[in-house]
Order: sequence, then C-alpha cells, then structure tokens
Amino acid sequence: MQEQRSITNMADYIDLNGAEQSFGDTDAQREVRQNDRGYVFHSWSAQGAINPLPIAKGEGATFWDYDGNEFLDFSSQLVNLNLGHQHPGLVKAIQEQAGRLATIQPAMANDVRGELAKRIVEHSFEGARSVFFTNGGAEAIEYAVRLARQSSGKRKILSRYRSYHGSTGTAITMTGEPRRWANDVIDGEVVHFFGPFVYRSAFWATTPEEETERALAHLEQQIQLEGASTIAAIVLETVTGTNGVLVPPPGYLPGVRALCDKYGILLICDEVMVGFGRTGEWFAYQAFDVKPDLVTFAKGVNSGYVPLGGVVISEEIHNAFVDRPFPGGLTYSGHPLACAAGVATFDIFEAEGILERVRDLGARVVEPRLREFAEKHKSVGEYRGTGLFWALELVVDRETHEPLVPFNAAGEAAAPFNAVVAACKAAGLWPFAAGNRLQIAPPLVISEEDLVRGLDIIDAALDVADSYYTGS
Amino acid sequence: MQEQRSITNMADYIDLNGAEQSFGDTDAQREVRQNDRGYVFHSWSAQGAINPLPIAKGEGATFWDYDGNEFLDFSSQLVNLNLGHQHPGLVKAIQEQAGRLATIQPAMANDVRGELAKRIVEHSFEGARSVFFTNGGAEAIEYAVRLARQSSGKRKILSRYRSYHGSTGTAITMTGEPRRWANDVIDGEVVHFFGPFVYRSAFWATTPEEETERALAHLEQQIQLEGASTIAAIVLETVTGTNGVLVPPPGYLPGVRALCDKYGILLICDEVMVGFGRTGEWFAYQAFDVKPDLVTFAKGVNSGYVPLGGVVISEEIHNAFVDRPFPGGLTYSGHPLACAAGVATFDIFEAEGILERVRDLGARVVEPRLREFAEKHKSVGEYRGTGLFWALELVVDRETHEPLVPFNAAGEAAAPFNAVVAACKAAGLWPFAAGNRLQIAPPLVISEEDLVRGLDIIDAALDVADSYYTGS
Repeated sequence: MQEQRSITNMADYIDLNGAEQSFGDTDAQREVRQNDRGYVFHSWSAQGAINPLPIAKGEGATFWDYDGNEFLDFSSQLVNLNLGHQHPGLVKAIQEQAGRLATIQPAMANDVRGELAKRIVEHSFEGARSVFFTNGGAEAIEYAVRLARQSSGKRKILSRYRSYHGSTGTAITMTGEPRRWANDVIDGEVVHFFGPFVYRSAFWATTPEEETERALAHLEQQIQLEGASTIAAIVLETVTGTNGVLVPPPGYLPGVRALCDKYGILLICDEVMVGFGRTGEWFAYQAFDVKPDLVTFAKGVNSGYVPLGGVVISEEIHNAFVDRPFPGGLTYSGHPLACAAGVATFDIFEAEGILERVRDLGARVVEPRLREFAEKHKSVGEYRGTGLFWALELVVDRETHEPLVPFNAAGEAAAPFNAVVAACKAAGLWPFAAGNRLQIAPPLVISEEDLVRGLDIIDAALDVADSYYTGS
Repeated sequence: MQEQRSITNMADYIDLNGAEQSFGDTDAQREVRQNDRGYVFHSWSAQGAINPLPIAKGEGATFWDYDGNEFLDFSSQLVNLNLGHQHPGLVKAIQEQAGRLATIQPAMANDVRGELAKRIVEHSFEGARSVFFTNGGAEAIEYAVRLARQSSGKRKILSRYRSYHGSTGTAITMTGEPRRWANDVIDGEVVHFFGPFVYRSAFWATTPEEETERALAHLEQQIQLEGASTIAAIVLETVTGTNGVLVPPPGYLPGVRALCDKYGILLICDEVMVGFGRTGEWFAYQAFDVKPDLVTFAKGVNSGYVPLGGVVISEEIHNAFVDRPFPGGLTYSGHPLACAAGVATFDIFEAEGILERVRDLGARVVEPRLREFAEKHKSVGEYRGTGLFWALELVVDRETHEPLVPFNAAGEAAAPFNAVVAACKAAGLWPFAAGNRLQIAPPLVISEEDLVRGLDIIDAALDVADSYYTGS
C-alpha cells in the first residue's frame, strides 16, 4: 500500500539513499537497530521490508540520526508534534507532574485533569459541556461514536471516502481509504459518502460553489436512502488530513449542519489531526461557521509527548448520561501526566502566540510560495490548504488531472513519487508524503528561516516531479 | 451496574461517608472538585450520580485526599500501580526521557522502544518473537485479535463469560460481564464460553480435577459446534481479574492449549491485569505450563505512569507479516516516554526482587490470613488467589453459596456489600470491590506492615458481612 508506506514505513528512505552504511556504524546506533529489527513489530508494515531509521535526538522542527544527519520535519512526526521536539515548557510540565503525581485512576478527581478539561471546553463551541479523555485519536473516535449511538438510540454512522479515523475496530471501518481495505468489516453499521473535493470532484462540479451545492444534495439523497431514522451521526475530518488537506469549500460545513438538524442526526468533527493550531484555530471548525455536537482530538493537544486523546461533548449529549451510566471507560482516562502536558500546551500557545504565527506564516510565507510553485512547476496541478497545513497535488497532466502516480500505487508504479520524496530527504527535508501529494505540516514553532529553507528544498524536488510530466 | 460502580464510581464513597464537607474545604480542593464536576466526563458513570474524591498525593501503597485522609490502596488504583505511587526509579526514568526525547514516531527506530521490546520478549514464552506496542489494554486486545484473524484467515473469537477485556468495540464485545450489556454488539464474530470456576461451577463439578475435565469437554463441544474452521482464536484472562480472581485449576490451561493445537486455533492470553508480577511471575501463564501464541499486556508494564500496552507475538504469527503488511497501527505505538518507564520497571523488579517478594508475601502473609478469615467469618464462602492477587467470595449461606448481594446488584440490593466496602474505607483501606467480592491487589511494593494492617481492616469489615449471614 503505497500511501501507507510513504507515511509510516521507512523502507523507502533506506532504498533511496543506498542502504545501511549510510547511517554510520556506532555501537549505540547498531544496538538500536538490532533491538528494533530483533524485537519491535511495526505499524502498517511488512516487517521484512523495513529498516527503520534510528533517531538520536530532536529539537524544535529538526531531528537527527546517529550520524548527525539532520532532517527538517515538514510532517511534525505523524502530524502530532505541533510544538516541536523537546519544547522546554512541555518537558518541564511533564517532569514536574512526574515528580508530583504521575498517575491516578479516572474515578478520582485530579487537578490537572480538571484544569485541562476546563481549558478545552472554554476554547470549544458554544454549548460544549465536558471532555471524555482517551489515550489517543482512534479511541477518541470509538468513544465519540458510542456517545452518539447511546444518546441517540440509533446505530448507523456516515463517514466519508478519503478519510482516516484510526485503526481500531470501528475507526478503521469508518476510514475511507486503503488502510481499511485489508481489514475485516468490524462494525457493520458504517456507511461511506462522498465529500467535496473540487479538483477531483465526484459530482462533476467545476467551482467550489457548485461542489458545495452538489455535495450537499448528494449527502441528502444518501441520508434519505439510508434512512434518517437509522443514522446516529455524520463524522468528518473538519479539514481532511492525510487524504489530501481537503479544506471544505464555503458553505459545505454549515450545509452539513443544516442537514443534521433537518434529519435529527448528530455531527462529529474529527479534529485529531487538525485540532490545536494546525489551521491557525484552536479547532479547525471555528473558521467554518459550524457547531458540532462532538469533537474528537488527540495529537496536538499535547504534541504527543504523552499519549492523550479525547472527545468534547455537547450539553445535550452530556445530559443523556446524567442519570444513566455511560457504558465505557478506560484505566488511563484523564491521565495526569498527559493532561499536565495539555495544560502546558495552552500556556505555550498563549505565551508564544502560536495561532497568530500559524495564520501569519501560512498566509505570508507558505501560500505565496506555493502559488509560485504552481506557476513554475507543471507537475503542481493544484495547491491548497490553510494555516500550516498544505498539499501539492502532483500530476502528469494538468488537463486531465492524472496524478503523478496512480491511486494507492506501490512498487514500480510509485517510483516517480518516491523519487520526489527521495529528493526531499536527500536534501534534509522529511516531507509528509501521501499518495501523489507532497503535504506540508511542519511544527507550528518552526522558524521562518527553516520554513523558507524547507520550501526551497521542495521547490528543487518539484523539478524531479516535472521530469515525469507528460501533458502539454 | 453494581460491579462497575464499586470499581470505578466513587459515588458510594460519598454516600457512605456522609457527604462533601467531610473532604474539607480548602481553595485548592474546591477548585479541583469544581473543575471535575464542571468539565470532566467520567468512565462507567451516571455523571449526575458521582462526586469524585479529589486526590492530593500518593506514595507507595498510600494516597491522600486534600484533608490529609490517608487510604491504603488494596486495589493498586485500577490494578495497574504495581510499583506503587511515585516510585523514584520510575519518576527518574520519565523525567530523564522527557529531557532527552519525549516522543518519536513509530516508524523510526528508538533506543528505549527497542530495549523494552527486547526485555519483554526475553521474559516471555519460548518462540516469542516481537512486541507490538499500543496505548493500553483495550487496544492490545484489539490488535491481538487482528493479528490472530489476519494471520489465520479466520474470524471468529471465543472468549469467556466472567471476563473483562476492555471497552473499545471488539474488546467490549468479547467482555463476558455486565459492562458489555449496555453496549451494542460491535463485532459480530465473538462467541462466549464458560470457563472453570469450581465454587460456582457451570458444569456441576465439585472438585478442581472434575471442573477441569468438564470445562475442557464443554469447550471442545463448543469448538465443534461453532466450527473449528471458523475460529481464529480463544482468548482468556490467564487468571481472571475483576470477575473474581479465578485461578485456573490444574490442567485447564494445558488442556485449552491442546484443544487449540488439535483444532488449529490460536491461544491469546490476556495479561493486562495479571502480567508484570501480580501473580509472582513476569507473566501469569508461566506458572501454568502453557505456551500462548499472543499475550496482551498493559498496566503493570510501567505501573500506568505513562499509558502503554502491547502484544507479545509468536514467531509464527510474526512471520505471517514479514512479506505482507500488517494492516494496523497508531501514532503513539512504542512511545519513548512510556517505554522508558517500562525499561525502568524491569530494572526495579530485578533490583528489588519484586517477584520473589510477591510470592513470599502471598504465601507467608496473605494466604494464611485469608484461611483464618474463612474459618472465623461465616460470610467468607471461599478465598482464592495467588501472589498478591486474591478474592474473598462473600456469601449469606455457605451451603447454597448464595452471594452476599445478587449478581450485578445495584441500589438497595447492593447495600450489604456496600456496607462492607464502607467499613473498609472508613478505616482507611481502599479495597478492590467487585460484585460480592472483596478482592486484594495492593501495590507489589507494599510493606509487610501495611499489608498486615490492611488485612486487619478487612478482618474487621468482615464482621459487617457476617451480620448479613442467613445460613446455618
């Protein structure tokens, strides 16, 4: 599975840079590699086809291997490292909390747990009431779905194609891309629908306005045909992440909300990847005039320094479980160490003006440069994004929109895209590579200088993409 | 749901001890309570029926509320705090790793991740090959099931009644007790069977030998009738935890293994609660002459100081994913901060002789004292356990084995058991209360003095249980 491999399987790095010796041969490094290959079973990988890169250290937007090779991280690891590596404020919060009270069970009341829940609710939609904490994004989705089903008494979940919602049973069934394919259908009550994507419209639309109108009409038909009385919730990534940085066109999200209201369906915004500053907002939905009922988060809430996720819950849904027990829970719900890093995240965002700098850097540095790429490089069929979250849609033909590599390409078929990725890595940039897209998601603390340097590297790598161009 | 409430819902504490003012009224405490009630959505609870106890600090086997009330923790929080609160070795490992490299994505190689995987494999069954890390126990079960299904090409999972396997989709469907009831069937390919439990035998057996023989015959019939060709795996808690500290009778686990071999079925031992020393072994199965194919763990691996779980994978299953990608993964798989606490756990276990002291304290201090309780207190129908993991089966009639409170009792029906629990808490002991059972699962570092003191408190509380006795 090409898309997976680009994102989570480092085999390509090894292949493309000429094998093991390039990593040096220190004892420490050898031991790391030996233990990894000897004992660690890796996500989304053929275990025999990978040779993971041992990482020695990280700082801000940069990480280093054991040879001192430096990589500028335009992927924020897995789009979780919003405050970069080793942010002193996060490190301090974790160290202090570890020394004070590392853990306490979820049934007790805990100061940092309550403080973080309060901060999240206060920065959420009007009518947000409480937070249920999990260990990560997949569990956040699992519990959001349970909250929706249990409070509505209905079971069906509508999620979109071109989405990723996590890898546990219900979450992977909801996912609308190749990572779902090899998995069994665990949750039989999930149905997929098409969302807006003007550049590859499923509705033969040519403008954002038309795409919005048709996507909503399509969704309404599907609601009617699936039966509104059977549908608990519609789930969508507010801005689709790995599957293309698909920013909803004007009117789409309010339109989905209106359909939810019309048909008595709950709206779940999955903000695991885009929450906490990625788009220049606390939550991405805040830029789109829409009020969700449930919001999932993880990653950015504490930059993944300690596993943490959760669900923001509306007053109405919360109230469904005031007298009746919510049937779910986990040992580490509201883990103090994780929550302490979350509280620190709010402090740092405010002290460093993170949201403002994301908006500024996105609008002033990234967008103009990507516009320039689109003018200069034929292979850039479209660029799109917001904040510090962008995608370059690489194509071999601007007329037909034929992608640089086929959907879900692997092996030889993926070679042109892999060559572009290799050019980035060889120049010291670790890109967020997905399908036929170079995506851009650096830590939000990245310096302007590094941001420009990374864009320069991509600029050069696009020459490689251009070399595959076959259109006129 | 009575059992749930006893374990994870502190409403009973409040009710039984006479309400809020007993917690004192400091500003700090008030704020903790206010934020908790204002913003935190709690596991397994009717949100309006709880009033969680704010905890100010913990040390070893003891924790304190904001009034300085002290509780001896005979539940190790949720049976995760094997090394107690604020163990200096764990705190140091977390603080150092936070300062070095708090996180790195799973596709990279990382020193502590590899080191922990190595230690776990080296302490596991012969033929163990690798470890897939998750964020906790429920995810460990989800991924163990996926590994079994994907490697076997079969889908059905057999799990036991009187079990708890976690609360995500497949895990809660596998669970064989009331916490499953209110949930939808998410995973349709799960079937429950009865395991051995001599005191409440499902097979009309009266001795452990007879129970083993009949439980195995029953299981074989069920395998035949479900169709061995459809069954991917049998999953069991090696020693059943919350549902009764059910230690398998001699021959049962080897018998299950033999059935698995005969019918081509994988064996998954769920050691989320009992792994890492609870029974005096690294893994509980090591005392029962059985070799699993997959082993799930969480909790004790790092005492829950940082969310972590995982699956130990046999060579055969690992090899099924050497050439073919495993379709699953998560952002925080093998999280360095969590793994650093896991590596420290091994060091501490060895330096402090934890396994030896668990066996010693269990055999020398706990078992004789519980035997004495069974002689002295009519309400103790049976005591059972191993290591530092025991249960007192409280009954109102030793002849009929009628429990002190009905199965899954709530409200008034649960009052007799709640009175016993209240007596423990009033005397400063936080018990592991489940159904009609007082269970005993203190931190493995508890001092002998505290252990005896806790047992003294239980001794006195059993007078309350005796007062409800109706038998002859």
